[in-house]
Amino acid sequence: MTEVRRIAIDVMGGDFGPPVTVPAAFAALAKHPSLHLTLIGDEPQIKSLISPITASTAERVDTAGRVEIIHTDVAVSAQARPDSILRGNRDSSMFIAVDRVRQGLADACVSAGNTGALLMAGRHLLEAIPGIDKPAIMATLPATRSGGYSYLLDVGANVSNNAAELYQFALMGAVLASSLSDRPRARVALLNIGEEAHKGTPEIREAAVMLADNPDVNYVGFIEGNQLFDGVADVIVCDGFTGNITIKTSAGAVKVMQRLLAGSMKARWYNRLLGLLARPLLQHIGNELNPSRYNGATLVGLRGIIVKSHGNASRDGFERAINHAVKQIEDDVPTLIAGKIQHMTD
Amino acid sequence: MTEVRRIAIDVMGGDFGPPVTVPAAFAALAKHPSLHLTLIGDEPQIKSLISPITASTAERVDTAGRVEIIHTDVAVSAQARPDSILRGNRDSSMFIAVDRVRQGLADACVSAGNTGALLMAGRHLLEAIPGIDKPAIMATLPATRSGGYSYLLDVGANVSNNAAELYQFALMGAVLASSLSDRPRARVALLNIGEEAHKGTPEIREAAVMLADNPDVNYVGFIEGNQLFDGVADVIVCDGFTGNITIKTSAGAVKVMQRLLAGSMKARWYNRLLGLLARPLLQHIGNELNPSRYNGATLVGLRGIIVKSHGNASRDGFERAINHAVKQIEDDVPTLIAGKIQHMTD
Repeated sequence: MTEVRRIAIDVMGGDFGPPVTVPAAFAALAKHPSLHLTLIGDEPQIKSLISPITASTAERVDTAGRVEIIHTDVAVSAQARPDSILRGNRDSSMFIAVDRVRQGLADACVSAGNTGALLMAGRHLLEAIPGIDKPAIMATLPATRSGGYSYLLDVGANVSNNAAELYQFALMGAVLASSLSDRPRARVALLNIGEEAHKGTPEIREAAVMLADNPDVNYVGFIEGNQLFDGVADVIVCDGFTGNITIKTSAGAVKVMQRLLAGSMKARWYNRLLGLLARPLLQHIGNELNPSRYNGATLVGLRGIIVKSHGNASRDGFERAINHAVKQIEDDVPTLIAGKIQHMTD
Repeated sequence: MTEVRRIAIDVMGGDFGPPVTVPAAFAALAKHPSLHLTLIGDEPQIKSLISPITASTAERVDTAGRVEIIHTDVAVSAQARPDSILRGNRDSSMFIAVDRVRQGLADACVSAGNTGALLMAGRHLLEAIPGIDKPAIMATLPATRSGGYSYLLDVGANVSNNAAELYQFALMGAVLASSLSDRPRARVALLNIGEEAHKGTPEIREAAVMLADNPDVNYVGFIEGNQLFDGVADVIVCDGFTGNITIKTSAGAVKVMQRLLAGSMKARWYNRLLGLLARPLLQHIGNELNPSRYNGATLVGLRGIIVKSHGNASRDGFERAINHAVKQIEDDVPTLIAGKIQHMTD
């Protein structure tokens, strides 16, 4: 008998809310027969979205007893200050979702809402894994040369990090990379301003020594910003400030290329025609670099699984975030991390 | 009578050396009648490159008495450790070029060589502008929405910076932006992980207060990584570590898009045809984002003008770096900066 996986879904989070999250939830139910979901949000809206889905998929997917709804009409807005979730918004869909994990009523939660607020709720409600000083947010990057992807952490849970924290990020990232993409010896790199040992901040250089000294870590050295998408490492570690600027800069650069392409393709009739012909191709490339393709940032370091979907994720993207959560439950990632850290400090 | 502008050129620097730098130097001589150049490098090679140029342009450009050659066959390699320039390479073309500025025999120098070594030579040979704690490297970014460009500093002269240094970078950047692109009220922003006042490191928040308090600075607030190419600020300030990762990540993201485009266009016969048709367009876009189009990073904060060309700059790119140096000489940028800083601390 397969064990039941219980996930709490913040249905109200993200740019689109229930019209994206509810169908995604049902797609995940169809995929994972052992999945049980708690949908947290506006009950009338959720029910009105569920009716046509169950009507059309009734023959294929048995969702009886696998879906529970918790009603709340409070949602944390994307613009809200993170700490508002602890002050006025304890009855919000996001807070309730994280609290289900705290109470042991869910094995994981998934939200596409305000990242800062989700982090705040996670830190407030869940304990840190013993041996982990600070949680981190791990994002997924396309690794175009290898056709796969790499993981980058921290991308914004912290503002600055010391050597021990960077070292812990590396261990956590390696466990997660192994879980999410079946790479038993995940290659770990530190993001730096050069490849030579004397480069970078004292924190990075010290973390490098700690990683090189640990035979359990497949540490491959420093990499630079221009190698981020080359697939030369499975896990790329940096402080939260650097990681946040890095992913936003990448998104900005891709947007610029697309804008320039679109602009040039309008400029002349010949290019306009070309633009029309090339549209499917550009769409394809846009999808390759689309964050929602690799959707599911993970808040790592807490005794509980919290997956953060991209705010503008599509139905498929949000479903992928749920799949990430399922995989982390199956592998019991927090316990794996605790074991690694324990082993290190023995 | 126009004043003479004297520039020392490190002819040996960069990926291509004299075959790029010498023709670029003569193109600059043709453009600026008041320009005098000292070409430093392998004399036989320089002379063999000059002969065909002067033969073909003799009627148009009078270079008599405007070109001097200083022979050296020592060049700093791109891979050399920066401090090698002070140990074994004091007779290198790069060291001699910077030393001409120190001796007052040149008003500026231009090199496409090893950035770290150039910085090391600059710091060693030239004094800092009074009131400036640390020099910075300022790079040029395409600002695609406005069709212009923005300046980003520091992109790697430093590893970390305090609030006063960030503040000084902002003042220096504003002076340079005004000089190089005729923007008298250059908009200055700080690169941060959010737009709200409470975001970021203590250093950034303190620098923000200092900038907001200075009515002489057109401070527009924090911007995030995804706004870097939107032209929302003329000068974008960050510490050297962040700036270095930022420009390298941008280059990496653009490379990825190009790789994906090229890859998709080979995949099917239809796309292959499309790729053939679209080649001029992709070339055009590649050029738009080509660093050598905006070439000429500036080492700012020293009592002397040092312009760093991109290592793989084309002839046009290297000429543009020389043009940057001419502009900075005309405006006497170091003196302008000294005046601003003086004014601030009065």
